Amino acid sequence: MNRTKIRQLLAAQESPGTVRVCGWVRTRRDAKDFSFMEVNDGSCLENIQVIADAEIEGYSRIKQITTGAAVSVTGELKPSPGQKQDWEIQAARISLLGPAPETYPLQKKRHSDEFLRSIAHLRPRTNKYGAVFRIRSELSFAIHRFFHERDFTYIHTPVITGMDCEGAGELFQVTAMDMADPPKTDGRIDYSRDFFEKPAYLTVSGQLEAELMALALGDVYTFGPTFRAENSNTSRHMAEFWMVEPEMAFCDLAEDMDNAEAFIKHVTAQVMKNCASDIDLFARFVDKTLLQTLEHIADSEFIRIAYRDAVDILSRANDRFTYPVHFGADLQTEHERFLVETHFKQPLIIHDYPRSIKPFYMRVNDDAETVAAMDMIVPRIGEIIGGSQREERLDVLEARMEETGMNKADYGWYLDSRRYGSAVHSGYGLGFERLLMLLTGIANIRDVIPFPRTPGNLEF
Amino acid sequence: MNRTKIRQLLAAQESPGTVRVCGWVRTRRDAKDFSFMEVNDGSCLENIQVIADAEIEGYSRIKQITTGAAVSVTGELKPSPGQKQDWEIQAARISLLGPAPETYPLQKKRHSDEFLRSIAHLRPRTNKYGAVFRIRSELSFAIHRFFHERDFTYIHTPVITGMDCEGAGELFQVTAMDMADPPKTDGRIDYSRDFFEKPAYLTVSGQLEAELMALALGDVYTFGPTFRAENSNTSRHMAEFWMVEPEMAFCDLAEDMDNAEAFIKHVTAQVMKNCASDIDLFARFVDKTLLQTLEHIADSEFIRIAYRDAVDILSRANDRFTYPVHFGADLQTEHERFLVETHFKQPLIIHDYPRSIKPFYMRVNDDAETVAAMDMIVPRIGEIIGGSQREERLDVLEARMEETGMNKADYGWYLDSRRYGSAVHSGYGLGFERLLMLLTGIANIRDVIPFPRTPGNLEF
Repeated sequence: MNRTKIRQLLAAQESPGTVRVCGWVRTRRDAKDFSFMEVNDGSCLENIQVIADAEIEGYSRIKQITTGAAVSVTGELKPSPGQKQDWEIQAARISLLGPAPETYPLQKKRHSDEFLRSIAHLRPRTNKYGAVFRIRSELSFAIHRFFHERDFTYIHTPVITGMDCEGAGELFQVTAMDMADPPKTDGRIDYSRDFFEKPAYLTVSGQLEAELMALALGDVYTFGPTFRAENSNTSRHMAEFWMVEPEMAFCDLAEDMDNAEAFIKHVTAQVMKNCASDIDLFARFVDKTLLQTLEHIADSEFIRIAYRDAVDILSRANDRFTYPVHFGADLQTEHERFLVETHFKQPLIIHDYPRSIKPFYMRVNDDAETVAAMDMIVPRIGEIIGGSQREERLDVLEARMEETGMNKADYGWYLDSRRYGSAVHSGYGLGFERLLMLLTGIANIRDVIPFPRTPGNLEF
Repeated sequence: MNRTKIRQLLAAQESPGTVRVCGWVRTRRDAKDFSFMEVNDGSCLENIQVIADAEIEGYSRIKQITTGAAVSVTGELKPSPGQKQDWEIQAARISLLGPAPETYPLQKKRHSDEFLRSIAHLRPRTNKYGAVFRIRSELSFAIHRFFHERDFTYIHTPVITGMDCEGAGELFQVTAMDMADPPKTDGRIDYSRDFFEKPAYLTVSGQLEAELMALALGDVYTFGPTFRAENSNTSRHMAEFWMVEPEMAFCDLAEDMDNAEAFIKHVTAQVMKNCASDIDLFARFVDKTLLQTLEHIADSEFIRIAYRDAVDILSRANDRFTYPVHFGADLQTEHERFLVETHFKQPLIIHDYPRSIKPFYMRVNDDAETVAAMDMIVPRIGEIIGGSQREERLDVLEARMEETGMNKADYGWYLDSRRYGSAVHSGYGLGFERLLMLLTGIANIRDVIPFPRTPGNLEF
């Protein structure tokens, strides 16, 4: 008999009669002539309650059916007399598929996030991490659907790259040479004998390639892994994380902000709707204000404010900050959070930043002092999206590259996109894990990805 | 005025009146008092025809509006008197956004795939590559939707890994050390001073991690990049490619084959439906038998045959093969294609291979000679999916690891999944680009990914 997922069983309008579920035992309680079991199969947060009378097939092994054991249960789905659930299974037969000896680390008690990180191969079996990873999946799908419905083309930009992009942070290098004894010429490593015949790195962003694709296909987006070798052990950074990078031809900064705002609202609302019980877990146990925050994001109109005006507001509160603010300063998380949590109490988008603190590809404004950049700021996280209108004018772009000391010869292909049929275009980047932190209230980025990669951590 | 995508215009039931389109000029022909232009915006294969009378705004620059130029056209959408299209735009105003000087490499003529590969940053602007990348996107979405509808959880397995998995092909190594002068202890590289404090590699498969997740969440799948440093310049291999790896708890080999067959049929049918005109391009210019092949895949029941029986059939035709077949031999593409194209003339799944030629994690059958493996074979490509039921018995798995010379200590976390709540489970891997080759008839894998990574090729 085929198994039915618990998620489907619990949504039943009427009993289908006899069903089979497979899953893992969360708890078992024995009475005199029968046992209760709570079984979870990962399809949803909720367990199904199983009543096993002592005379049924398989009951003789009931003592071995401990927390963590895998079981198959066949029986009738019946309305539950209990308060906590609508349905329960009156078991006719129980099979122990895989026992879980006493050493099983996930016995029924609260475990710290630190401990669970050390057993990341088992933590998805807990309520909390099961919920995180279901939300992660649903959010991924909501992102794809948002762009698919708007006729965006999903593109895969390369992970291994020959360029160091904007010099944003440290790069991982990739090689197929024997590192202990690389081929050398005149005492220097001879990369012409490596796999790609030159030095190779892990990408920090797919943006430049996405621009090439947007200037052919119109609206495109990436959703893929990116890498930073920054040796910082914070709760907000990982060496490997996923980014979403839309890029839109014939789109200016205002339309870029419109899209980003619609995007965040849409996927937030989708996840709230489709993962209601998983989100509720975090609202109860992780962040009491979560639902309020998310509803506010989904429903309110975002403030839009020029960097210059944001700096005016911030500099009047400079005595609160570790880093005082002035025009030309990069905004820190403390400033962003002040604006969003204290001053406006509403999500906001800051635009038109000084050119001196932004990368070469952002479009220079008519004032020559600022560029058409934008950052979206949300409560608790700070910046969640960074984007810009791109410099589409070949001469201005070349001047910017020279100004920032880049080697134009390495970017001939990028400049070609401005040489032939150039057009206004814009895009943005979303840190996928940052959005998951926002949606769950989880404070440490290592807890929203199955197997985090940070300095010294390469297990599993 | 907002732009409308050409895809939407061409699907119009009635004229919305005045519209604005933005795109790139494919051709322009001048008559005495007016010009015709074909404009493409990447939203679909088809161009929109634009009629520009000499007196309209912007016409004075018409000579600069050459092939490849970016334009904005405002005008009335009218039924076209021409045979080739339903709608055309009677322009009221044309703006040249970005010219394309004579050096533009994509002048209107046929270009070889080799040449286009050398300008991979511009080739998405051609009909053929625009179509490939739209199909790639639609296929991606069809894959996500297939699994989402079946309540699978989409998971992201790590790209950077500490294990060399099954030793499948060569690995790329990843480092944050200065390769020219890595820290050494006693003359040997001291990896404890590298970013992860031990050697790191790029993943060749997310399967083992997916197994951990399946044994918590039930049904899961990955869709992400994988890497092989094989120094082989073939039309079927790349260093970086995308894989889809479903993994299902409480699922045996027969159900695994059922899922794989349903999956291939479903996504093939979806792409044929949603990318009809793009697929038609390949059916006309690349592979005349394409539609027939794809309909056959979507509609026919796949043959299932044990490896032993397949070898019987093949060995009777051994005089045709470069590599004669016997029990225990790995099947080559020539054998697979003989079975699917000549013998059965139908897609097939070969199952229960000799254990000696399969990896340690595949479940040992009761005959002790074979394992519960399966490969799906399709026309022109050969193997497109490889999968198996996984060895869920701790003692058998450990014996297999010892037998194949693996260090069990490195896989404690993997063995834990059999130590605690182990269960029957199965999965498979699909080479995403191989499937794209099947769907388009394209013969070289470098032509179905935007920026291919192969030995010596790391541009863009």
